[in-house]
Amino acid sequence: MKIGLLGYGTIGSSVYELLKNEIVMVFDIEEKRHLIKDAIFTSSAYDIVSSPLIDTVIECLGGDSLPYELIKTSLLNGKNVITSNKEVVSNHLPEFINLSKENNVSFFFEASVGGGVPIINNLIDLVNVDGVNHIYGIINGTTNYILTKISEGLSFDEALDLAMKNGFAERDPSADLEGLDLRRKISILSSIAYKSYIKDEDIKTTPMTFINKDLMAKVKSLGYSIKYIAESIKSGNEIKIVVEPVLFKSIDLISNVNDEFNMIIINTLNNGLLSFYGKGAGKYPTASSIVQDLERIKKGIKQNIILNDNLIIKNDTKSLYLRYKDGEINFTSKFSDDAIYLRVGPYEEI
Amino acid sequence: MKIGLLGYGTIGSSVYELLKNEIVMVFDIEEKRHLIKDAIFTSSAYDIVSSPLIDTVIECLGGDSLPYELIKTSLLNGKNVITSNKEVVSNHLPEFINLSKENNVSFFFEASVGGGVPIINNLIDLVNVDGVNHIYGIINGTTNYILTKISEGLSFDEALDLAMKNGFAERDPSADLEGLDLRRKISILSSIAYKSYIKDEDIKTTPMTFINKDLMAKVKSLGYSIKYIAESIKSGNEIKIVVEPVLFKSIDLISNVNDEFNMIIINTLNNGLLSFYGKGAGKYPTASSIVQDLERIKKGIKQNIILNDNLIIKNDTKSLYLRYKDGEINFTSKFSDDAIYLRVGPYEEI
Repeated sequence: MKIGLLGYGTIGSSVYELLKNEIVMVFDIEEKRHLIKDAIFTSSAYDIVSSPLIDTVIECLGGDSLPYELIKTSLLNGKNVITSNKEVVSNHLPEFINLSKENNVSFFFEASVGGGVPIINNLIDLVNVDGVNHIYGIINGTTNYILTKISEGLSFDEALDLAMKNGFAERDPSADLEGLDLRRKISILSSIAYKSYIKDEDIKTTPMTFINKDLMAKVKSLGYSIKYIAESIKSGNEIKIVVEPVLFKSIDLISNVNDEFNMIIINTLNNGLLSFYGKGAGKYPTASSIVQDLERIKKGIKQNIILNDNLIIKNDTKSLYLRYKDGEINFTSKFSDDAIYLRVGPYEEI
Repeated sequence: MKIGLLGYGTIGSSVYELLKNEIVMVFDIEEKRHLIKDAIFTSSAYDIVSSPLIDTVIECLGGDSLPYELIKTSLLNGKNVITSNKEVVSNHLPEFINLSKENNVSFFFEASVGGGVPIINNLIDLVNVDGVNHIYGIINGTTNYILTKISEGLSFDEALDLAMKNGFAERDPSADLEGLDLRRKISILSSIAYKSYIKDEDIKTTPMTFINKDLMAKVKSLGYSIKYIAESIKSGNEIKIVVEPVLFKSIDLISNVNDEFNMIIINTLNNGLLSFYGKGAGKYPTASSIVQDLERIKKGIKQNIILNDNLIIKNDTKSLYLRYKDGEINFTSKFSDDAIYLRVGPYEEI
């Protein structure tokens, strides 16, 4: 393959390391030119997306506006595209799918959800032959790392500091802590699973910043864990879809997913429950997912994603909640005051 | 596709249900003729493997000698083959791979390990781009169901009876209890992962029939579970490969895999730890894996399995063991008498 690489940051440089022989051009800001020894650097991204020498573009920039333009132009110019960028995928999935079909090229984005966990392509294959009605899981390594450390006895701030120190949190961690990252990812997973494009901004999102050491310790003593999850469940033409901290029994599989690991659980009609576990972040796991997408392109595989359904989001509140106030906890099914309420999850099958 | 189905038992009949429109002929013993309404039944398997009308053969017979002949003939006759039969795959994998390459057809066997868990094709894709050096997991639903029930307080015999009553154990459960089923499956997984054909009969196999309620309860009180696993770990040109009951900490993910569920854990160079969880048995999960293999054939995907390495099996015993005798347990690194010894797992990375 003749690959153009957009972005030479953490992930892009790892992709470069793994695919050196096939990369013919690399785009990033002028300041990074000295990092690439070979004479293949450009600080103009359009050199890549318009080059007739390049058949496949790998986008590792992050963000929306520039990546959107570059991916769109690449597809229009008949180039395969691989991206790890959940924001641009979540915002423009229908358009990218259509463009890739119209231009008879491949569009792959395995690394956009779950880092090294092979969830996207497995989900696409599953949906082709089986019905999926429920997805939930830990799809953000940063917040799971923080919750793990809080349950080990650190305060929220200490846990966040440690996450930053160990490279598991970005300098501005708000997209993780407030759930924006999770809702982008559950938007992608749910759109594929239910064949209906779900906009991320329509997803009810609760930040996880209110979780503290005392609450965590109390919950633990009752035999539960708190996990910051994204969840969607479909019934007829309705879906519930949320991002929020949820209580799980300590013996549930998901309760034992620690640190930066992710776990995605899918319920299917014929296959029953399936679950995928692995490193949700990290340069090599993510780069490895990108390389696997490239293998799919080499085999001539085209994504077969259908988005022709139209679901209505309807989050009713029929659930059991844990109520936490003034250091006291109890279970309830109704919100009655300004205490902290944590849903006991996952959703029951509808 | 024009499919010939070999075997109309539990799995075969579910495959028939899911793929009715594409199945043009079904083979089983004459006594089953009345089960198929359509005039497509044959009691001569050679009608299927030699028919010019059939392009894909799905084998759900089980056993070795007849399935071996039928798969071989199908491949030689230019037909794609899908099988759920771990015995025939484990015994003849190199020959089937060669025949499928020589005849330019596909050979898929996702359902042969892990039932509905998509482990085979994910492992093949991984090995293509990443190094795998360690595989372990619960790959037998029957014995995991029995161990789950023992840990819930049943005796071994009560647990086995319940497994039979609920359809999780066969009338003759010895292949499961003695580990023959597990060693066939770990032979397949290890051969793919390490690119070296591992014969199942060379794998050190310890039955799980010595596990009793008292031992399980004692182990549990120490914060451990007992899981009947298959494990292989590679270092240079040597592998350790075993099937045996192993101790895991209760907080390990694998300890919370219950009933008929399977979990396969893979350690990779770039991707780190990955794990796949789902129903290891059952007609629909297994049939769904077969249907997914068929989708791969429709997309024109060919398996790319390489078996050109030559590993030496070397099971040294440098491990920590739990010693159990006369109701007493303690940890040791040496066998000194005829007590029960349970390895503390998994193997450490070499």
